[in-house]
Order: sequence, then C-alpha cells, then structure tokens
Amino acid sequence: MLTLYDSSVSGNCLKVRLLLTKLGIEFERVEISVRGDREPAKRERFLAGNPRRKVPTVVLEDGTSLSESMAILLWFGDGTRFVPSDRLERQRVLEWLSFEQNNVEPAIAVLRHALTLAERTPDPAVEAFLRSRSESVLAVMDAWIAGREFFVGDHETIADIALFGYSHLARDAGIDLDAFGNVVAWHERMREQPGFVALGS
Amino acid sequence: MLTLYDSSVSGNCLKVRLLLTKLGIEFERVEISVRGDREPAKRERFLAGNPRRKVPTVVLEDGTSLSESMAILLWFGDGTRFVPSDRLERQRVLEWLSFEQNNVEPAIAVLRHALTLAERTPDPAVEAFLRSRSESVLAVMDAWIAGREFFVGDHETIADIALFGYSHLARDAGIDLDAFGNVVAWHERMREQPGFVALGS
Repeated sequence: MLTLYDSSVSGNCLKVRLLLTKLGIEFERVEISVRGDREPAKRERFLAGNPRRKVPTVVLEDGTSLSESMAILLWFGDGTRFVPSDRLERQRVLEWLSFEQNNVEPAIAVLRHALTLAERTPDPAVEAFLRSRSESVLAVMDAWIAGREFFVGDHETIADIALFGYSHLARDAGIDLDAFGNVVAWHERMREQPGFVALGS
Repeated sequence: MLTLYDSSVSGNCLKVRLLLTKLGIEFERVEISVRGDREPAKRERFLAGNPRRKVPTVVLEDGTSLSESMAILLWFGDGTRFVPSDRLERQRVLEWLSFEQNNVEPAIAVLRHALTLAERTPDPAVEAFLRSRSESVLAVMDAWIAGREFFVGDHETIADIALFGYSHLARDAGIDLDAFGNVVAWHERMREQPGFVALGS
C-alpha cells in the first residue's frame, strides 16, 4: 500500500487525499507535524530522499518517494478522467496548476499559516502584503469560473482539485470569501463531486 | 512564426527564451512593460485569452495562446532532450519545476521586483520576510546541487532552466549569493551550455 506523509491541516496534502480517494487508491497516512516533531525517527524516514523537505510526500510500494503536490497530482492523474487526454486541454490544466503553486498557494496558504499555525503573530505589513495578493488571485479565479462549472472542460480535473486546496481555506486567512461569489459557488460544486473528503477528515 | 509576449527584465520570460533558443525555434518578441503601458492596443492583444494576465505568453501560428512559464517549458520541452523520457526522471523534473514556481519565484522574484522594479520601496518587514524565504530556497538548491552537475540526470533539463531563471538574479534582490557556492558554480555551468542567452540580451 502507498504511504502518504501527510498533514491534516495542509491544503497541499488535502489535494493528494482528494485525488487518491476519487481514484479508489488506498493509502496509509502518516501525520507530520507542521510545528516540528515529537518523533524524530518518523521525521527522518519522511525526509529520506526528500530534498525539499515538504509534505505531501507519497512513498510507493517499491520505496520510491514522490513529492510536490502538483507533481503528485500529475503522476496519479495522467491517464484518468482527472487529466484531459487532448493536448491543449491538458495544457490548460497545467496552466492552472502552475498558477495555483505560483500565485494562490504562496498568498493564501502562507497568510493562513501565519495567522493560524505559526508561533508568532505576523507583522502587520506582511499580513497586508499577503492579503492583497490573496485577494488578487481570488479575483482572477472568480472572473474565470463565472459562467463555468469547472476550471477546464466540463467536469472536475486536477486543476479544480489543486485550486480548491487553499482557495476554500481563504476564510482561515481572514479573507472575505463572500466577495468572490463565483468561487464560493464552485466550492459548493466541488463538495458535491464523488469522492469528496474535507480537510480534517 | 511564434510570438512571445515578453518582458526583458523577467526571469520567467528568460526561461522561455532560453528553451526556444536551445531548441532552435524562432520567435518574435513583443515587449510588455511591467509598469503598465503606453500602448493599450498591444496590451489588449496580449490579454486576449490570457485569464491570468501574466508574461510570458506564447501565441502559436494558429492563434492558440499558451501561458505560465512552467507549462510553456513542458509544452515545448516534452519529447526533446530537455525532458527525460523515463517516467521517474521526468517526475523529478516536475518536482523541481513545481518547487521553483511555489518557493523560489515567490521569494526571489517578488523581492527583486519590490527592490528594483516597483514604484514604492517595500516595507522593511516585508523585505525581511521575503529575504528569509529566498535564503531558505537557495539553501535547499545548494545542498542538492553539491556534487551534481545538473538538477536531474547528467545533462541540462528544463528543471535547470526554470531554477536558473530567478536564482541567478538573487543578487538583484540583495542576497549574498556567494554564500551558496554550489549554486554559483552551477550558474557558471549553465552559462556554458549551448544556446545560452543572458537576461537583457
């Protein structure tokens, strides 16, 4: 069975759990604390062969370690209904995956972490900087999803799964998500898709 | 011929110019100013079909628009010597591409922009926040490239091209790059590869 080095509070880890669950792939979860560790041996196993030191990390049955949520989504998603087979449609998925890692996650996830998980309160200027960037990316998403059911094509793809990961946690980051009504409506659609799992479950 | 909506100061755009040049693919450059525009019609053409409003954007001869540097590198790189054909080696390239967009670019590129391209001086707390993150990602890269020639396998791939994009501009962001000697040595190797083009050229 696969092992998922996981964090129950991480949107990046949730993305992987969503896809594996939707694909019916069984996995064992090993929780890695974001605040450092009481179990150094577990952490050592997690970090072995993991040069970027990030969860989620998936270890395959043969011991191969896969990391970076975006790359993991492509590893398991390619060849399934969650990644289009048409080359240009697949490229649109890659574009949104890239935007998510480059713009959404570094704004919303970092602000949420600073406000809810970090040991120290963030500097107000840093908080304002991250809030402004978070609102900008949500505005881009809101404009695109208006009048669409999903981000690429007519059904759920890994682009939706990736973008859901942190955009649905924007309230934890103190963002007024109601200002982005199309995003909120798409979040509701995502919760109705088969194999949905919620953060913390 | 391809059209590249480009910014001569952008590391993200440089990545695309590097790969296209190395592959011998001709393209026409259209400069888009990072500070807004004196040519609204040009900007309108650039933004048409570009929901994330970012350079680089490549327009193919049939009018198809491709954006997000990471996705563009994969579009042109797949099937060439710049992306391994072995599935696991290709996955390692995707992991570094993801790390670059998720961790390197949002730290070094954003700090460099704030210090050298933005209209206002950044708040000192924001600058310190971004500097700390920049140094962390350079430390990860430095540890990995120590004793290696390239990031994945034994020759240059799009992982190297992507990571070169902003790491080699870290001095612009006020980072002491000499503290990361393995990264500096790899930068020198990258400059010696066939088809190298420098920022601003």
